[in-house]
Amino acid sequence: MLEDVKQRVYDANMALPKHDLIKFTWGNVSEIDRESGLFVIKPSGVPYDELKPEDMVVVDLDGKVVEGDLNPSSDTETHRVLYKAFPEVGGIVHTHSPWAVSFAQAGIDLPAAGTTHADTFYGDVPVARQMTDEEIQGEYELETGNVIVETFKKRGIDPMAVPAVLAQDHGPFTWGPSADKAVYNAVVLEESAKMAYHTIMLNPHSIHVSQALLDKHYLRKHGANAYYGQKSKD
Amino acid sequence: MLEDVKQRVYDANMALPKHDLIKFTWGNVSEIDRESGLFVIKPSGVPYDELKPEDMVVVDLDGKVVEGDLNPSSDTETHRVLYKAFPEVGGIVHTHSPWAVSFAQAGIDLPAAGTTHADTFYGDVPVARQMTDEEIQGEYELETGNVIVETFKKRGIDPMAVPAVLAQDHGPFTWGPSADKAVYNAVVLEESAKMAYHTIMLNPHSIHVSQALLDKHYLRKHGANAYYGQKSKD
Amino acid sequence: MLEDVKQRVYDANMALPKHDLIKFTWGNVSEIDRESGLFVIKPSGVPYDELKPEDMVVVDLDGKVVEGDLNPSSDTETHRVLYKAFPEVGGIVHTHSPWAVSFAQAGIDLPAAGTTHADTFYGDVPVARQMTDEEIQGEYELETGNVIVETFKKRGIDPMAVPAVLAQDHGPFTWGPSADKAVYNAVVLEESAKMAYHTIMLNPHSIHVSQALLDKHYLRKHGANAYYGQKSKD
Amino acid sequence: MLEDVKQRVYDANMALPKHDLIKFTWGNVSEIDRESGLFVIKPSGVPYDELKPEDMVVVDLDGKVVEGDLNPSSDTETHRVLYKAFPEVGGIVHTHSPWAVSFAQAGIDLPAAGTTHADTFYGDVPVARQMTDEEIQGEYELETGNVIVETFKKRGIDPMAVPAVLAQDHGPFTWGPSADKAVYNAVVLEESAKMAYHTIMLNPHSIHVSQALLDKHYLRKHGANAYYGQKSKD
Repeated sequence: MLEDVKQRVYDANMALPKHDLIKFTWGNVSEIDRESGLFVIKPSGVPYDELKPEDMVVVDLDGKVVEGDLNPSSDTETHRVLYKAFPEVGGIVHTHSPWAVSFAQAGIDLPAAGTTHADTFYGDVPVARQMTDEEIQGEYELETGNVIVETFKKRGIDPMAVPAVLAQDHGPFTWGPSADKAVYNAVVLEESAKMAYHTIMLNPHSIHVSQALLDKHYLRKHGANAYYGQKSKD
Repeated sequence: MLEDVKQRVYDANMALPKHDLIKFTWGNVSEIDRESGLFVIKPSGVPYDELKPEDMVVVDLDGKVVEGDLNPSSDTETHRVLYKAFPEVGGIVHTHSPWAVSFAQAGIDLPAAGTTHADTFYGDVPVARQMTDEEIQGEYELETGNVIVETFKKRGIDPMAVPAVLAQDHGPFTWGPSADKAVYNAVVLEESAKMAYHTIMLNPHSIHVSQALLDKHYLRKHGANAYYGQKSKD
Repeated sequence: MLEDVKQRVYDANMALPKHDLIKFTWGNVSEIDRESGLFVIKPSGVPYDELKPEDMVVVDLDGKVVEGDLNPSSDTETHRVLYKAFPEVGGIVHTHSPWAVSFAQAGIDLPAAGTTHADTFYGDVPVARQMTDEEIQGEYELETGNVIVETFKKRGIDPMAVPAVLAQDHGPFTWGPSADKAVYNAVVLEESAKMAYHTIMLNPHSIHVSQALLDKHYLRKHGANAYYGQKSKD
Repeated sequence: MLEDVKQRVYDANMALPKHDLIKFTWGNVSEIDRESGLFVIKPSGVPYDELKPEDMVVVDLDGKVVEGDLNPSSDTETHRVLYKAFPEVGGIVHTHSPWAVSFAQAGIDLPAAGTTHADTFYGDVPVARQMTDEEIQGEYELETGNVIVETFKKRGIDPMAVPAVLAQDHGPFTWGPSADKAVYNAVVLEESAKMAYHTIMLNPHSIHVSQALLDKHYLRKHGANAYYGQKSKD
């Protein structure tokens, strides 16, 4: 069942330690098959060197495990909320990558400080508001998803143009049309956060790119008139 | 004698350079066999690429070497004090990992700044008070242990809920139910310290997680109602 | 056609990830054959593990692709402007190396803070002025080159003595007599930026080397009286 | 001639990139044979992957090359001055390791901030004064040595108790009884500088270890009463 997706999700999970985005099992990747409405996600807490493609867990959009012997990632409910709210999202990544976490813990947006950021994120990456005690003590992982969705709605941010968020005091979630692209975005987020941190320390008075430069770099890689790379598709 | 423990202690020591926690021989790991009241510890100052499982030294809780031709780690007395004071501790690690050392040298607690920290440490990791000249000039390594125990007692911290300490101007000790878990905790401590440092630099006004988030993350991984991973045990 | 140059340009591009200067495809190297007036550059957006020497694209100084099936790097026009304006330049590198980018995003020159910098760069590495919206919305990559050339002209900097620039809010370009030397200069720039950052944080009041030390270190490695290494040539 | 020393000097030079202390050829190690009064040093500017033990150059204490076809390191005169002034020194290392360089460029002593430092350096590692224009324009490398010697004399520091110095705006020199120990000291210096930097940023008001702790850690590893490791010798 969804063997191709399982393989891609497995590969995407294995890419997290390769890109130095996680320690141990502190991350998870999923990908959705929009036709069947099922998504495939990493099992919870299994060491990466023991993971196999067939260990991936298949879950439906009501949160029911459809196939798999292992517990799905403890963050499965967050993934589910995002898939339901953002219909163009095909893959989701959660990590505790340290530079992105530092902004999440500081409770500040990751500013679009230069073209490295602008090539992928069309504006600041928002930090979600702090969760209430009720949200935390209730269906925590589901509410984490809700607060993320609320952030994009309230601030009028297109989740496909800024495919990342910082869950406050926690860490980043990124997404994209596929699991593989979501991992790519997680790497860009971490690298952009590292650069923004040092930029802020060097010169807190001049952090943002101009709107014109943000437009230029984002649009030369995305959309109908993109001209970066060998084909015009994303 | 205790060949299984020696192998585990050897493996745990070898994990320290693998996780970038030490340079050269600047670390030591031990594990105790509570039945016999004996613990196994790395010999002092032997290069890691020459270490063998059978080089591990067996020591009793009075500090007497029971088996082994090499001198035990110079920090053996600190381990011994902790095993005697904290009866649930099964393994202990000491390193000079640089981010944790930076907080130890600055003389400040490592704040529970986010969920990465909260997943493992149920509150701030305390820095022990500075040692007096008398303590340093006397039985230094034993007194290091005493000051650590005093820190947890005076501040009412449960050493199994916060399995780490910063010996002031020195470096971290971590522990856990086994040597392997103590190494895991040493990695988390170092990663949490790196994140907390950058959080403090970005926004010194907002460093701590809420109590609700600390509770949620710690308790979803520990205790009777834990639901992270594939089984409910720690 | 220019098979030797293609091989050197390929090798130089492959050196970028080896020296930790780039993630993914975020860099490009070219080298010019001054006799024919043709330069060879990496194709746009091809993953490094799929690149082959024969994929390199040959471009003339009017910007026309002379040989190659793939689109040349999106930054080709910047390279072309620099080759035309700086006749001694033989190779050019563009990266998003994070320490250099941090200065570019902060909008400040990279100061000649010590001998590591002075061994290669005979003075501060300038940050180019911010580009106007018109320049960005027009022939952006060509204008990027123009702004770099303007920077060196207006400030009277010899591009062979300071073979690097920070494109503001974007990242570094470096160059040299060959692609290989331009890569070397990109490594020195990144290392010098890392050192300068920490120097500024430790002591913002004392950042520059003396003119005498700058002269000494630059000239012991460059020019007629150089005495570093095994031969007097650069 | 001195084939054993050449092999050791070769090995010590090859250890510099292995310990991430240098890029390219930015370092040099030498060792002296006190009986013959000859020292062996790395040739200048030869890529590390082309170096061979037999390339090492033999120099006498008057600075004359006694054996070797290649130019000795451009810093040979600095090594020579140190061997003459510090008769117990057996090996010398120069690097541009980035954390130590940051303190050198900032023009501040590396403070003895904790036990990692104290285990090897019995007090702050001094920064030498800025060199005068005359010194720089004259016999620069020899004068670099003279300024280092002056620093230890004027400040009454024992070079065997603090086997390192920061040449201002330049970088570190370390030494020891052998080339191998000098490399060890270069690693400790770099790690201590990294830790001290972050300590200063976290808490500039509390940087130094107590004298008692400095004494304890230095003396448990050095001198007649040392008890660290498997033998009492250094």
